[in-house]
Amino acid sequence: MIVTVTPNAALDVTYRIPALVAGSTHRVAVAEHAGGKGVNVARILHALGEPVVATGLVGGATGGRIRTLLDAEGVPHAFATVDGESRRTLTVVDPSAATGFWEPGPAVPLEGWIALCHRFTELLGGARVVVLAGSLPPGVPPDAYARLIGLARAAGVPVVLDAEGEPLRHGLAAGPDLVKPNAAELAGLVGPVDDPVDAVRRLGAVAVVASLGPDGLLASTPDGRWRAYLPEPVGGNPTGAGDACVAALVRAPERPWPDRLRDAVALSAAAVRAPVAGTVPVDEWHRLRPSVVVEET
Amino acid sequence: MIVTVTPNAALDVTYRIPALVAGSTHRVAVAEHAGGKGVNVARILHALGEPVVATGLVGGATGGRIRTLLDAEGVPHAFATVDGESRRTLTVVDPSAATGFWEPGPAVPLEGWIALCHRFTELLGGARVVVLAGSLPPGVPPDAYARLIGLARAAGVPVVLDAEGEPLRHGLAAGPDLVKPNAAELAGLVGPVDDPVDAVRRLGAVAVVASLGPDGLLASTPDGRWRAYLPEPVGGNPTGAGDACVAALVRAPERPWPDRLRDAVALSAAAVRAPVAGTVPVDEWHRLRPSVVVEET
Repeated sequence: MIVTVTPNAALDVTYRIPALVAGSTHRVAVAEHAGGKGVNVARILHALGEPVVATGLVGGATGGRIRTLLDAEGVPHAFATVDGESRRTLTVVDPSAATGFWEPGPAVPLEGWIALCHRFTELLGGARVVVLAGSLPPGVPPDAYARLIGLARAAGVPVVLDAEGEPLRHGLAAGPDLVKPNAAELAGLVGPVDDPVDAVRRLGAVAVVASLGPDGLLASTPDGRWRAYLPEPVGGNPTGAGDACVAALVRAPERPWPDRLRDAVALSAAAVRAPVAGTVPVDEWHRLRPSVVVEET
Repeated sequence: MIVTVTPNAALDVTYRIPALVAGSTHRVAVAEHAGGKGVNVARILHALGEPVVATGLVGGATGGRIRTLLDAEGVPHAFATVDGESRRTLTVVDPSAATGFWEPGPAVPLEGWIALCHRFTELLGGARVVVLAGSLPPGVPPDAYARLIGLARAAGVPVVLDAEGEPLRHGLAAGPDLVKPNAAELAGLVGPVDDPVDAVRRLGAVAVVASLGPDGLLASTPDGRWRAYLPEPVGGNPTGAGDACVAALVRAPERPWPDRLRDAVALSAAAVRAPVAGTVPVDEWHRLRPSVVVEET
């Protein structure tokens, strides 16, 4: 089983309107999905037929809604419960732009963080790989991912970390098996250096796969270094491409890196081309896979 | 006991941000209140010490949040439950403007509307006056208020109706004891006529009190016609002034109209001046009351 951990799980709300006009009132069409990076990774893995469970922290009416929506999609979940309301992430979409409004998430008391550690430890018993993903809600210690990595390592379970800022920096020092920064996260960690991917790896990760948008993936691993990309980048909505990349990378950690990177580039591109953000176009994934170029560097 | 009915109860969400920029992402500070016109009237009556209960339809996680927030304020409620999610009404506030996003509300199946009728009939037994207020959610018949007015009349309970459009037009034909249209609602009902207040009354209401913003109230009743206003209109946030007006009017239906109108003008103005929309500044109400001018017309 793959376990994904989303400490700051979200209710993703989309309002569609004809045109955003500041100062006026808009009647909206509403769509809602359970969200947060780890939840999205779990949804993709479930759609690919992988045994998976989503954990993390949810609270209040919004947390109940997150659970209900995952139930409706059939995505297994086992969240710990926190007092307070889970955050909503609202995107207002009109034909010219997508405007985002991000709530901060609940203030997590010490008991909430302890409850998540307990739940995580229970799930480690059946886990073959763990994904830690996304931001931390207020109150969760900035080294939370480092502590969860320590628990997973003690249990002999590989860990993938997809985070940014202080949680990523602390997490790296705990020795995750894989981190997947994007270009902005690379720069935030190591600044303008010649080889930021290797520089991040030296901060403590066993392997680093950097996602560089249309430039594909750059991987630095104990088995070698690769670049993987599509010769003709696809156009579309990049929301969710990073989560698709992580989902592809964690499916089969025992397979050779070039195969995993080919899968990850193709699934990210399929997500970019998906007509609805967050859906998993499996056919498109299979169609794109042969076109991916993987080069040793 | 006063019973307020809000068929389309809402979760009022406020996001405060430094500046709204279309196409960008904003981190927001969140405030939430139970809302919908009848819920707001119930909150005000409760703050004034009047025995009151809020009913209507709520559903889903958002409906649960509405109940939780009313519990936290101590406002008694007895909603019927509907499948689907209650609507949210979001206001994004930056220093230059308030921008609204209104969800439509749940699609109410016949069972939901029947459940509301049952709950309403149960509550009528202990009611001395009923307030029907606000929009109808999709699926509730447009003559819903007319039917509820019929049930209340059969039970000998006076009814105040605060609605607009078709629900108001149908409701008027059922003979409510009082309707409180604003200027736009008057115009929508009878068009540009010499005396729209009397024209609305001829559509079926026993009495009409029109709220005309800074121009105060214009009342046409079986006991006479009055205008009530403050000589110096107050500045502030008009959100909630109409609900305060209704709350003041229903408190004591047995008192003479000039007293009720004086109360209503002063409470509306106090609501406009309140630093936080939806709060009830009782001291300000008492302070403003002696200044209200009530003239027979």
